[in-house]
Amino acid sequence: MGWTLAELARRIGAELTGEGQREVDGVATLERAGPRDLSFLANPRYARLLASTRAGAVVLAPEHRGQCPVPALVTPNPYLGFARIAALLAPPPPSPRGVHPSAQVSPEARVHPEAWVGEGAVVGPGAAVEARAFVGPGCVLEGECVVGEDSRLVARVTVLRGTRIGRRVLVHPGAVLGADGFGFARDGERWVKVPQLGGVVVGDDVEIGANTTIDRGALEDTVIEEGVKLDNQIQVAHNVRIGAHTAIAGCTGIAGSAKIGARCTIGGGVGIVGHTEIADDVHITGMSFVASSIHEPGVYSSGTPLEPNRTWRRNYARFRQLDAMARRLRELEGLLRELEGNGQAGGRRGGA
Amino acid sequence: MGWTLAELARRIGAELTGEGQREVDGVATLERAGPRDLSFLANPRYARLLASTRAGAVVLAPEHRGQCPVPALVTPNPYLGFARIAALLAPPPPSPRGVHPSAQVSPEARVHPEAWVGEGAVVGPGAAVEARAFVGPGCVLEGECVVGEDSRLVARVTVLRGTRIGRRVLVHPGAVLGADGFGFARDGERWVKVPQLGGVVVGDDVEIGANTTIDRGALEDTVIEEGVKLDNQIQVAHNVRIGAHTAIAGCTGIAGSAKIGARCTIGGGVGIVGHTEIADDVHITGMSFVASSIHEPGVYSSGTPLEPNRTWRRNYARFRQLDAMARRLRELEGLLRELEGNGQAGGRRGGA
Amino acid sequence: MGWTLAELARRIGAELTGEGQREVDGVATLERAGPRDLSFLANPRYARLLASTRAGAVVLAPEHRGQCPVPALVTPNPYLGFARIAALLAPPPPSPRGVHPSAQVSPEARVHPEAWVGEGAVVGPGAAVEARAFVGPGCVLEGECVVGEDSRLVARVTVLRGTRIGRRVLVHPGAVLGADGFGFARDGERWVKVPQLGGVVVGDDVEIGANTTIDRGALEDTVIEEGVKLDNQIQVAHNVRIGAHTAIAGCTGIAGSAKIGARCTIGGGVGIVGHTEIADDVHITGMSFVASSIHEPGVYSSGTPLEPNRTWRRNYARFRQLDAMARRLRELEGLLRELEGNGQAGGRRGGA
Repeated sequence: MGWTLAELARRIGAELTGEGQREVDGVATLERAGPRDLSFLANPRYARLLASTRAGAVVLAPEHRGQCPVPALVTPNPYLGFARIAALLAPPPPSPRGVHPSAQVSPEARVHPEAWVGEGAVVGPGAAVEARAFVGPGCVLEGECVVGEDSRLVARVTVLRGTRIGRRVLVHPGAVLGADGFGFARDGERWVKVPQLGGVVVGDDVEIGANTTIDRGALEDTVIEEGVKLDNQIQVAHNVRIGAHTAIAGCTGIAGSAKIGARCTIGGGVGIVGHTEIADDVHITGMSFVASSIHEPGVYSSGTPLEPNRTWRRNYARFRQLDAMARRLRELEGLLRELEGNGQAGGRRGGA
Repeated sequence: MGWTLAELARRIGAELTGEGQREVDGVATLERAGPRDLSFLANPRYARLLASTRAGAVVLAPEHRGQCPVPALVTPNPYLGFARIAALLAPPPPSPRGVHPSAQVSPEARVHPEAWVGEGAVVGPGAAVEARAFVGPGCVLEGECVVGEDSRLVARVTVLRGTRIGRRVLVHPGAVLGADGFGFARDGERWVKVPQLGGVVVGDDVEIGANTTIDRGALEDTVIEEGVKLDNQIQVAHNVRIGAHTAIAGCTGIAGSAKIGARCTIGGGVGIVGHTEIADDVHITGMSFVASSIHEPGVYSSGTPLEPNRTWRRNYARFRQLDAMARRLRELEGLLRELEGNGQAGGRRGGA
Repeated sequence: MGWTLAELARRIGAELTGEGQREVDGVATLERAGPRDLSFLANPRYARLLASTRAGAVVLAPEHRGQCPVPALVTPNPYLGFARIAALLAPPPPSPRGVHPSAQVSPEARVHPEAWVGEGAVVGPGAAVEARAFVGPGCVLEGECVVGEDSRLVARVTVLRGTRIGRRVLVHPGAVLGADGFGFARDGERWVKVPQLGGVVVGDDVEIGANTTIDRGALEDTVIEEGVKLDNQIQVAHNVRIGAHTAIAGCTGIAGSAKIGARCTIGGGVGIVGHTEIADDVHITGMSFVASSIHEPGVYSSGTPLEPNRTWRRNYARFRQLDAMARRLRELEGLLRELEGNGQAGGRRGGA
């Protein structure tokens, strides 16, 4: 059941120090690992834990090889190496095939014989569940959806009419794909619903977190490009486009028609206003408020610091005076310049 | 299957320019529409797209009629006109009637013969599902709930004991109505639960977004008045009241016993503190923090701007000094006034 | 069916004023209560309602006993006393026992004969549902989970592989326990998933709100200690630890590996950055952003005030100048000190 260190090193292209025939069969932290576990050191601030580790081997960067008392797999990106090895040592449970007798699959749906539709799941007419896809317990797929090859809807995922999910997509429980966008026209004091007729398209290798919601477009599609990673409880409104390989942390909300570039990282709790555009390679720190487009790559932030409540109350109240303070400051500067002039003049006068 | 432009113009009270017998049978954006599609121009910044549109007709405002190369339906509120036409051209799929064999309906529940209870849905004792109501797959209705006529619970909606939902209400997947409010009394270091005995009342023509939660009241009801529109992932705490025709964007949280007026619009990611009152016709921009009541109609905001991280760090740190800066500014002003006095006096003395 | 005031006073250790044999059988607000209802006064600002109450009795603090026209149960913590009495007068409905025929329970799962597994619920292999536990309709328990004695998963709760839930835990609909943490290693422009191999451990007497998500740890467990109360739509990332008896309001997000102390209270919409530590007895007000560790007990806040949009726009824009303003202020102070010196010198010179 174990893997030799030599084989693991070969798989991730690492250089091995120590006994290549030693075997490991699990992964653990430096503190908890035993002789049959592989561990890793990615964050240098934990380097002190190396000295006392009992791990069978450690994946680490070249600069730490000298500090490691046990065999090491040396690679420039140890976190990546560890991720690859962990996938070998702790593979996901094999996916069953077939349709559970309690599932409700429309006779007009197409479920690949190598796919699985779990307990109580519902698959509507015209839907397609492709090879090796997993539709977990309690999932609901309305008509005309596609779940691509090797994709996994863990449990209780809702996929509404016409949503197209690519290959190797992982969707966590409670996620809702394809609910109506939030579109209403005013009619006096009332709101009239604008029918939401677009779809949702999810590219290959996307991951979608628990209770995240992605609304269908109004007329065109909401698009999540390949390799995007969305954490839990993210709200993606209608007609948003998220560029390839962008990663977004939990609780972030993206308003309608915002376009986010490729390879961005967006922290948790961020709010992005509708109809904004964010360039490729933009990084936004947590709890920021993006009220307008960002045209240049870089790191962006907003927000104010945490303080003891007593001092915060004072600064909070002063914020309302900020513009007035700026004007008063400018006025003072003007007065002072004048006074300096006068002072010199006065000095000269005084000395005259 | 198509609709003539003359008929559509008549339905929305628009003035028609162009051939009334031409037919359309779909809707699309100005860029994508073909000769059988109707499109619209609501936002003037897209007016340049008119020139090249291939749409069968365009709903637009009087000021754009001259720029439209194809037939036009001219109306002062083109977005509203389009919403009405889209509902005609793309009506929701007809709702089935009956109870799916996999649903679990209590013998003590009442399901109207013209209603539908879908796959795997659960309807508890004493619940009522009224005429033409749709209880989608995986919904759970506990006992004593009411789902009013023509209301639609799309899928996987949870409606807990005693919740009363009005007519023509649309609830998206994952929404939870009637979970316990968050009420605890302190007992030393422990919390003792305060039973949550109120209900949830949802008026007619309300829309509730995916994964939105509305808690039951502690002793009285949480109330969502008629025509309210709630986007996804909104949290409505116990005993909140939201006034008629108010619309709230995604990810907003409303704490206990807050009262929000009628015809308000509240942006996404807003936080509203408990026991506050917000007047009618208040508009709050996204990501604002409402810490106290708002007594006057108007537009309100809070928050700080997004900046490149490097400059933000400096301003962020300075926020802690804001009150001190205000005091120093005042002191400087005092000193300067004094100095001006002295300067004049000095000048006079100097000149004496 | 009623309870005598004497008995209720005895149960909560209150002093009774008025007729001990009078009975009540419900609870209501001071305004709505009738002669068979018990009410309470916890917030002194509602004291004026005492004079006109028709309640059968009121739980109140010693300072209000003189103002109460009806019998009173006098206790130093009337809210706690009320909570206890409400639990007696309005007990939750009795939990059924057994497994609903529509539930799917693995033959390798263990369901205690005094437990309940409801309509359409799924219980995987190796899972254990302990005595008097309630697994409501539509819940999904993957393999190897434990639901402790007297715990209640209301409906549509998802509990993923290996999650361990203690005793008397209450979990509201839509909550997801044990979804994968958000962990990826960079590989060029792509992300490689880091397998999430830890679990979720929930202590006794915890409450978890609707649509709240608690991710499994990466290698070790995410831990919610005993007595913690989590409101709706909270996101708890992998490897977070929340200390005993801490209460957190809705929409708060806690990033990976944050450690929160015991007996804290955290307001709604708060964001807590990953790898931070928060001491015991820390209180954080709503919508705050916790970007670094908090080492001392106390009340902490961040954020800026709500303002009419017009004035906010000016202050918002000025925030970008805050650091520059601070520098200009310092410069002015320097100039002024110099000028004061010069002024005096000039004065002296002038007087010479």
